[in-house]
Amino acid sequence: MIRTDARLADGRDLFYYSSSAAHEAPTDIRDLEPRSGTGELRYDALDGDWVSVAGHRQGRAFLPSTAECPLCPTTPGNVTEIPAPSFEVVVFENRYPSFQDPGDAPGVDAGLLAAGPNAGRCEVICFSDDHDASFADLDVERIRLVLDALADRTVALLEIPYVRHVFPFENCGEEIGVTIRHPHGQVYGYPFVPPRALSRLENARRHAEATGRDLVRDVIDAELADGSRVVAQTEHWVAFVPFAARWPFHMQVHPRRDVLDLSGLDDAERDDLAVLQRVLLRRLHGLFGVRMPYIAGWFQAPKGPLREHARLHLEIVSNRRAPGKLKHLAGSESAMGAWINDIRPEDAARMLREVEL
Amino acid sequence: MIRTDARLADGRDLFYYSSSAAHEAPTDIRDLEPRSGTGELRYDALDGDWVSVAGHRQGRAFLPSTAECPLCPTTPGNVTEIPAPSFEVVVFENRYPSFQDPGDAPGVDAGLLAAGPNAGRCEVICFSDDHDASFADLDVERIRLVLDALADRTVALLEIPYVRHVFPFENCGEEIGVTIRHPHGQVYGYPFVPPRALSRLENARRHAEATGRDLVRDVIDAELADGSRVVAQTEHWVAFVPFAARWPFHMQVHPRRDVLDLSGLDDAERDDLAVLQRVLLRRLHGLFGVRMPYIAGWFQAPKGPLREHARLHLEIVSNRRAPGKLKHLAGSESAMGAWINDIRPEDAARMLREVEL
Repeated sequence: MIRTDARLADGRDLFYYSSSAAHEAPTDIRDLEPRSGTGELRYDALDGDWVSVAGHRQGRAFLPSTAECPLCPTTPGNVTEIPAPSFEVVVFENRYPSFQDPGDAPGVDAGLLAAGPNAGRCEVICFSDDHDASFADLDVERIRLVLDALADRTVALLEIPYVRHVFPFENCGEEIGVTIRHPHGQVYGYPFVPPRALSRLENARRHAEATGRDLVRDVIDAELADGSRVVAQTEHWVAFVPFAARWPFHMQVHPRRDVLDLSGLDDAERDDLAVLQRVLLRRLHGLFGVRMPYIAGWFQAPKGPLREHARLHLEIVSNRRAPGKLKHLAGSESAMGAWINDIRPEDAARMLREVEL
Repeated sequence: MIRTDARLADGRDLFYYSSSAAHEAPTDIRDLEPRSGTGELRYDALDGDWVSVAGHRQGRAFLPSTAECPLCPTTPGNVTEIPAPSFEVVVFENRYPSFQDPGDAPGVDAGLLAAGPNAGRCEVICFSDDHDASFADLDVERIRLVLDALADRTVALLEIPYVRHVFPFENCGEEIGVTIRHPHGQVYGYPFVPPRALSRLENARRHAEATGRDLVRDVIDAELADGSRVVAQTEHWVAFVPFAARWPFHMQVHPRRDVLDLSGLDDAERDDLAVLQRVLLRRLHGLFGVRMPYIAGWFQAPKGPLREHARLHLEIVSNRRAPGKLKHLAGSESAMGAWINDIRPEDAARMLREVEL
């Protein structure tokens, strides 16, 4: 993996990731407005967490036509976020970030009506220069390059002083909220450990204190012993539908070895994962004969407290429960945080196993 | 308010709520299958919470035509869940419940692969026999009757031994996941205090221990002192967009007096609320000239520990951020629990205040 560093017209970083030689890095010829940087992080005193208020994001691209796609390579007719005429994998800072460089702005402590800068970093990663590809269409070598790029971004973002936690993810499909169709993912560097990652870490700490054992390891062992929800196993990875799956189709993908984040995976694990991730997404898309919307996101170790309780794993969830039906996060899930799943996890696992590839 | 108790053909409870006289209660002439009752409550060991797995719910009605609506009054051509030919407000047990009577099944403690009965109760409340009405179209007297019915259900469900927490809510609009268009809400009796209610109670307890004061009261006072996010005030109620609003349009509605649940509201407070709730929903629908999808849900006091830290309030949230754009709960919100809001709460409050009714 070779990284070529570049910069966009408004000063944002851009990185070309290539499998063989250094990439050419043409100049960004656009006359861009300076970055807005008006976001805020606000403390929700009732719920006890932080919300990013990013009003400047309302202006971002919303389902642009292919001819105007900002994630395609630049052509004479469409000058995009990527100045090069072709690329393999490219990463750049989001023009409409939810979290951004706070400059000299001071941080802020939790409290009634407490607000501070939405310090952090939001990057976009394009998986291909082919506008019509999807992650499941990529070849294994390209997925491997994406994994290398995400591992590199994880290390880079954790080095930023105001970043505490790095979350690489892909939203795929308009039904899950995608606003640009070009195949891409995102990497968020949060200034806090986000609530769901934090509760997993705290549960793991409690489990370790009570039993002396590792929670994620015990969950994996229990799933393998039971077997009814296992979707696939490889030399280095295990994929299953969790026992208490929240979504109609919900997979967890764990390395067999304890690893803190993507940068801790060795070459054999990355090669193996590239093959498996492609298989799992193709199984998902094969369920109903229609492309499935999904969120694929990595749980990784944060900086600081509880770091040692983290275990790298990937979650892939889809909100499609039947060909013409979506699961919505309505009253029970959105307002109360209480999840209801209409598909038995064992049935979901069987359906995924039975898809012919 | 007068309640008339009845029973459906498969044994489910049905209650007619009327403003004047006792309701006629015709016999349910359908030949219904016995209730399925195959749901399960499963413990998610990584996240530390409970998920209801209710596979039988996949068979529930999905956007039925008006002629086949199961929530309309029964006619010769459409024998529905409500045997009467007309009604004001009616409540009945959901035929496809996420939580239900566990019978003699034993409960279960948290643990790896721990599962038990999804004990609890799910009720449907119809606000009107007019299929095409919406809550905002109801007259004030009808809204008052709905409030009385919800207060009655709250008391009744809290008396059930296996119910810990009662959540009355309305999902409105297909964009938020409604599967039946007839104007209706739901009342869930959970066998646990759901995660979001629990974290509010724990934050209130911590605040009380640290300051000797009431968290919700302090939040209301801070919002009134600031004023920029206040949408409406009445003699007994205050409505504002929270400082750290999670949704593009997000209102909290609090009584000025400390009240534990809907049954604790006096007549004057209920009368006042009926007027205000109608105004707030009409402001919401008036924002963009298109009907807004929303979730309206009541935070109430649970049974047992932390009960004294609860303060009744209503949250109304919409996922519409612009006429043609919805907010989706994608990677950051769904996977990490970290919320990003594209509309400044002060702007949302101003827009809501400026709607002409």
